[in-house]
Amino acid sequence: MNEAVVLTPERILEVTEDVLRRFGLAKATVVDVARALDVSHGSVYRHFPSKASLREAVAKRWLDRIDAPLRQIAEEKGPAPARLERWLRTLFAAKRSRVLDDPEMFDTYLTLAREACAAVKCHKDTLTDQVVAILSDGVAQGVFAIDDVKATARAIYDATSRFHHPAHADEWKDADLPARVDATLALLLRGVRA
Amino acid sequence: MNEAVVLTPERILEVTEDVLRRFGLAKATVVDVARALDVSHGSVYRHFPSKASLREAVAKRWLDRIDAPLRQIAEEKGPAPARLERWLRTLFAAKRSRVLDDPEMFDTYLTLAREACAAVKCHKDTLTDQVVAILSDGVAQGVFAIDDVKATARAIYDATSRFHHPAHADEWKDADLPARVDATLALLLRGVRA
Repeated sequence: MNEAVVLTPERILEVTEDVLRRFGLAKATVVDVARALDVSHGSVYRHFPSKASLREAVAKRWLDRIDAPLRQIAEEKGPAPARLERWLRTLFAAKRSRVLDDPEMFDTYLTLAREACAAVKCHKDTLTDQVVAILSDGVAQGVFAIDDVKATARAIYDATSRFHHPAHADEWKDADLPARVDATLALLLRGVRA
Repeated sequence: MNEAVVLTPERILEVTEDVLRRFGLAKATVVDVARALDVSHGSVYRHFPSKASLREAVAKRWLDRIDAPLRQIAEEKGPAPARLERWLRTLFAAKRSRVLDDPEMFDTYLTLAREACAAVKCHKDTLTDQVVAILSDGVAQGVFAIDDVKATARAIYDATSRFHHPAHADEWKDADLPARVDATLALLLRGVRA
C-alpha cells in the first residue's frame, strides 16, 4: 500500500476513468480503483462514501470538461449573435469529437451522466441556462428580439439536436454535415434577430 | 386454394401487414402470406417477384400513408406560413401517433423503410421537397425571404428532428412537449419570414 502519495479526489477520479476504460462500466469496481491507486478501498471510500457517489463524480467531471469552454462563451460580454453561433458550434464539436474519438467511453460517460441527472443538475438545464444568458445579453444589446427568452433558449437547444444529441452521432461524419449546420444556424440566428 | 377471389397487389400488401404484425419481421415468410391469402406462393410471386420486392412495397405503402396528407398541404395554394406550420404539425402528429399506438409495428415499418431507401426515393427527400414547395410559394407570395430554399428546407427538417425523428420518441409523451413544439415553430417561422 502506497499511502505516502497524497490521495486527492481528483487523483481518484483520474484513475477511476482509466479503470472504466480498461474494465468497462459493468465490471469496474471500487476495489479495482483502489488496486490501481495502490491504496486500500477504505481510502477511496473516505473521499467517495459509495460507488454511486464515485460514479456521480466521474459523470460530473466529464460534464464539467464539456461545460467549461461553453460557460466561458456564455459569460463573455461581446456581441450576442456571434457568441450564440460560437457557443453552438463549440457544443457540436465537443460532442462530435468525443463520440468519434472514443465511442465506448462516450457510452460509459453518457450512462453515468444519465444516472447522475437527479443528483447533479441535469447538464441540459445548465446548457439552456447558458443560452438564456447569451439571448438576454442580445436583447440588452438591442440585436435580438425575443418574447420568452427561456422558451427560445430551449427551442434553440431542441432545434440543434441533430448536431449534438448522441442519437444522431452516426451522421456526424457525413460530408454534407457542415453545410447543414451552417443552414440551421443561419435560420435560427435570423429567427431571434431584432 | 381460393383463386376465385381476384388477387390484387393491394390485397397482398394488406395481408402481408397482418402477417408481419402476427409473426414479426424476422419470421414472416412469403409462404405465410400465401397461406393467409389461401393461394399458392406462386400467385404472390406473380405480383411481387421476390421477398425483397414485397418488403419494399410494404414500406412504400406505409410511407405513402404518412406522405399523403403532407403532400396535400404542400400542394395547396394558401398563405405559406400557415401551411408550413400545419405541414410540420401534421408530420409530428403522424410520427407520434404511429410510435405511441403501435411501437412494434413502427419498428418493423422503419426497418423496411430503411431497406427500401435505395430503391424507393428516400422518404426524407420526398418530405424536404414538399417543404421546398411551401417555401417557394412563400417567397412568391412575398411573405418569406430565403436565399437558398433547398438548404433552408433541409434546415427546417433538421431543426425539427426532436419532434419527428424516432430516436426521440420516448419524449413524445412529455407534458412540456406541446410548449416546446410551439417555441420551435415560432422561432423557425420568424427565421424565414420576409
